[in-house]
Formats: sequence, C-alpha cells, structure tokens
Amino acid sequence: MEKLGKQTIKFDNPPTILECSSIVGPKEAQGPLAKYFDQTLEDEFWGEKSWEKAESKIIKEATNMVISKSGISSQDIDCVFAGDLLNQCISSSFGLREINLPFFGVFGACSTFVESLSLGAICTEGFAKHVLCATSSHFCSAEKQFRFPLELGNQRPPSSQWTVTGSGAAILSKEGNGPYITHITPGKIVDMGIKDANNMGAAMAPAFADTLITHFTDTGRSPNYYDAIISGDLGHIGKEIAIDIAKSKGYNIKSNYNDCGVLIFDKNSQDTHSGGSGCACCATVFSGYLFKQLREKKLKKILLIATGALMNSTSSQQGESIPGIAHAISIEL
Amino acid sequence: MEKLGKQTIKFDNPPTILECSSIVGPKEAQGPLAKYFDQTLEDEFWGEKSWEKAESKIIKEATNMVISKSGISSQDIDCVFAGDLLNQCISSSFGLREINLPFFGVFGACSTFVESLSLGAICTEGFAKHVLCATSSHFCSAEKQFRFPLELGNQRPPSSQWTVTGSGAAILSKEGNGPYITHITPGKIVDMGIKDANNMGAAMAPAFADTLITHFTDTGRSPNYYDAIISGDLGHIGKEIAIDIAKSKGYNIKSNYNDCGVLIFDKNSQDTHSGGSGCACCATVFSGYLFKQLREKKLKKILLIATGALMNSTSSQQGESIPGIAHAISIEL
Repeated sequence: MEKLGKQTIKFDNPPTILECSSIVGPKEAQGPLAKYFDQTLEDEFWGEKSWEKAESKIIKEATNMVISKSGISSQDIDCVFAGDLLNQCISSSFGLREINLPFFGVFGACSTFVESLSLGAICTEGFAKHVLCATSSHFCSAEKQFRFPLELGNQRPPSSQWTVTGSGAAILSKEGNGPYITHITPGKIVDMGIKDANNMGAAMAPAFADTLITHFTDTGRSPNYYDAIISGDLGHIGKEIAIDIAKSKGYNIKSNYNDCGVLIFDKNSQDTHSGGSGCACCATVFSGYLFKQLREKKLKKILLIATGALMNSTSSQQGESIPGIAHAISIEL
Repeated sequence: MEKLGKQTIKFDNPPTILECSSIVGPKEAQGPLAKYFDQTLEDEFWGEKSWEKAESKIIKEATNMVISKSGISSQDIDCVFAGDLLNQCISSSFGLREINLPFFGVFGACSTFVESLSLGAICTEGFAKHVLCATSSHFCSAEKQFRFPLELGNQRPPSSQWTVTGSGAAILSKEGNGPYITHITPGKIVDMGIKDANNMGAAMAPAFADTLITHFTDTGRSPNYYDAIISGDLGHIGKEIAIDIAKSKGYNIKSNYNDCGVLIFDKNSQDTHSGGSGCACCATVFSGYLFKQLREKKLKKILLIATGALMNSTSSQQGESIPGIAHAISIEL
C-alpha cells in the first residue's frame, strides 16, 4: 500500500472483487435494474413479523448467497465488515449473528458499502485472504425510524428520496483476476449547513465533490480516465448539484457520471421523487448491475463514490445541520 | 501482519500507542480513578443546550487534546476511526465534523474503542503513519435513548450498569517506542439468548469468554502471560460470570483479571449498581488509567478486551435476545 497525495491509498496488490450478491424488495423489482438483481422479494416482510426482522433476513440471505456463489468456504473468510441504517446497526448484527466470523461493525450511513469495501481492501493487503462486506436498508424500517409511521400516510416532498429495500454483499479476495480495487479515497466529513432532512442529496453533494476532486488531485487522473463515475445515492437533485460543484472546480463529469439512486428507480412511473437512497442503494446497484457490467467488460474502469448523511432524527429536531461524507474506490479490470 | 490460528493477527511492526487523552463527567470525577483523567467536568451539559451536543463537545475536545499532547500536526494524521452509542453515531460525526481528516465511522457498541484501535493498528502496518481513534458516551443521552426519560426517575434494577459520560482518544503511530499493540483478536458475534436489557453483563460475558479463549488458543499464551486482563464493561455481575465461564473452559483468570466498569465507580458509595458501561467506559479507563500504568512500567503486558451489546430499544421491545461481541488487543512494552 502506498499513500498518494492527501487521502488516497494505492494498492500494491489490488484485491479482486471475487463475487457479489443482491436481494431487493418489491419496489426495486419494478424498477429499471430489476433483471440484474439475484433475488427480488414479493413483499416487504418476507415471512417475518416486523420490518426489522425482514431486513435482518435480507442481509443474512445476501451474505449466504455471496458465500455460496463464490464457491469458497465460510471458514476461509477472515472477517466481515457490515453496517446499516437502523439504530445501533441491528440489521447487520442480528442478521449476521450466526455467521461465526470476526465481525467489524461500520457506520457511514448510505456510504457504508464503500466504507466496508475500503476497509476490507486494506485487510486483504495485510492479513486477510478473503473479506466479506455487506450492507442493508429497508424502506419501511427506515421511514418508521427516521421520519413518520408509514400508517400516517404523510406526504413526501419532491426533494425526498426513497430508501431502497435490499442488501448487497461482496467477497474481496487477496488473489484473483479482477475486477480489482486499485485505489481508495476515504472521505472527510463535510457540512455546508444544509438542514432539510428531506433533501439529503443537497446535504451530501458537497462531500461527494470534495472526495471526487481529492481523488483526481491525489492520483493525477481526470474524469475521462473512467468509463463511469457513480455516486452512491445523491438522487436527481443531488446529482445536478454535484455536476455543478464539480464544474465550478474545473471538472466536467456530465458525460460519464451517474448516480445509483437515479439508476434504481424510474422517476416518471415509480413515485420515488428524487430517487433511491439507503445503505442498500449503492450496495445493490453495484452488486447487481455494475459488478456484472465489469465482469462482462462493458465497463472497465469505474470510480464508485458512496455518499452518506451522518444525522439522526434527534439532531434534526435539535436544529442541527447535516454532515455529509463520501468514500471513493477505483475499480478496474 | 501474520494471522495466527483462527482469529488473531500478529503485527510484524507493532504500532505504538503514542498518546492518549480522557475527559469524563461529574460522576466519574467522584470515582476511584478520578485523578488519572486529563479533565473532569462539573456538570453534564458543559455549557451546551442538550446532552447530545455536550457529548459531541466531549469527543471533540478529547481528540483536540490528544493531538495537542502528541505534538504531531493534525495534517500528519492519515485517518480517524470513531464511534459512539447514539443513534447513527451522531456524537462522533457531529463532534468530529471539523477535524478535516478521512473518517471511518465504526460501531461495536461498548466494544467500539478496541474495534477502533484494532482497525487503526491494521492501517498503521499499511499506509498510515498516524491514526486517531476516539469514542464517547454520555449517561443522560444514553438513558434517554435506550431506556426512559431521566425526568421520570425510574428505578434501576441491581443488574443495570451506569453509562460513563466521557470520551477517550488515542493516537497510534507506525513508529515509536511503545506501548505496542502486538496482537489483535477481533471477536465474533455471540448470542446466548439473554433478553434482559438491564443485564448487559450477562449478555456480553459469553462473547468475552469466546474471544479470550480464542486469543489464548491462537497465540499459545495462557492467562499468566499478562500482567492484567481487562474487560471493557462487563460490570460486577458480568465479571463474575466471565470468571466462571473461563474456569469451566480450563482458564483461571481470577488473579489478574479486572473490568473497566468495575474499576471506574465505587460500588458502595456511588449507587452505580453493577458498574460502568458505554463506549467511554473502556476508552477513558484505558486512556486515563491503564495507558499511564503502561507508560510508568507498572504494567508491561495487558490484554484489553472490550465488550459490546449489539441491540437497540426496538429489538428489546420486539422480544429479541442480545447479541454480544468482544474485541481483544495485546498491548506490550
């Protein structure tokens, strides 16, 4: 490992993303990426008695699936990085309580999937042969916890985003033939004073731009180096802000930039307003769609920048602004 | 780095714990370790308008203090690992939003401090020269969030523990003269079916014993290798259970084992029932007391095993049991 510039880490022996899995809920199953997901659920409960238990089941089954698809024994996995949006990350810790592997809980809100992959990649260049990374979110458990009981039927403002129900999981391997994680640029917390908890895209876009530009400065790369630059879940509004901020700093990303929250739902027919969000948004779009594009060589170099809003319902009620964060990884064939 | 046995990582170039800082609240300032803490607060608010803001201030000032004491520039710190007990870890992300360093949020409940040190140590053997690790907790914000409004004056059962108000922070350095982190044994999630959210010690003791025994098996060490074996916050009840489980597995730890939650309060005079808990319990007892014992060579080899209960108030209300976890680090001169 070598540090480039201020924040970027370049791997001497880049880990391979050996396998991915994705499970999504019924809303995502009606979206434009439906055919890429490994499994789509017919309802939000999946036979469980609560949304929280359903979310735990989703991450549990996604991790079982990725282990099974990879063909490696779970005993050959050195550790797990996992996290989610529920208070005290219970979806991960309950979902993975039987996995019987060293467990590192991580929290970066919707940036958690790339945070997990980053830390997992660092471990593979050290002691680990295989690392499992997984995150989940659930529309119903998130709405209940962060906003209002769903039964109230509250109206959602046009800037709001729709938490993705699902889980994405990946196994990183010290050896393999790619796709490789070649660089990571872990992000700093950036708070530009946005206080509207129904406009997460605006709150997170400055953190995205900060990490994006730091990545280019540290590596000497420019936007056109990548086939695609993908943000985690800025949504439609945040995506436009991100393009504008990047442009104002001298980086034109309009032609090869998109957002997982924009990709996962159809804006016109699905009533999801500004697009998808949640720890599962980036995790399922990467594990379901982008990973397969890389494997089929339709994409050869991507920069995945997951974004997170580091607030809770108490901080919003206390009038605090919303700190954002964005973690980036370069994935190349 | 080299993996020993099932779960333990041995460092080829063990990182030095360069400096530590600790700030605690008024209750801890009346306890037996008061003189070891860098700063003690006179009230729970510290001039802020809410307990959450006070907790953020405490972790912010603890990190500022450890940077200042270390004599290194904050620009020479490569990344930060931090976490806390508040929903979505807002104490860390609000407290450290101005630190302007790559930030990894971690969550392991009361095990978070040792989780942070473990991941920080892995980074120092890779890309990082210096890593900052910090955690916090606050009695009032934790009670409000996990149990009842303090204003209700609810009775606390004898098995309950008292969340420590405070923050501990440490800087790890690739180079230095110790104390060194020589080994880490990250723990697995262990759930033995305990459902009493007022008896965390019982819920976490099996995870402690699992990591303890795995550490001995992986390293070939026995309990008497260490001057002290210290658990994070099992408290009085959990400590006794831990001794019993270890004994039943053939390990006698009675003579050199103690617990941060037992050490920080005086059971007879402070009305803290089963002892201290919270992300700050292990963090402040280590940073305030144990680190100084190591520096003064009163202790030369310790095994620090922080324990966490990975539940939230919703999971308890839904009748779930409490998964526990315990992460261990060997610290040697």
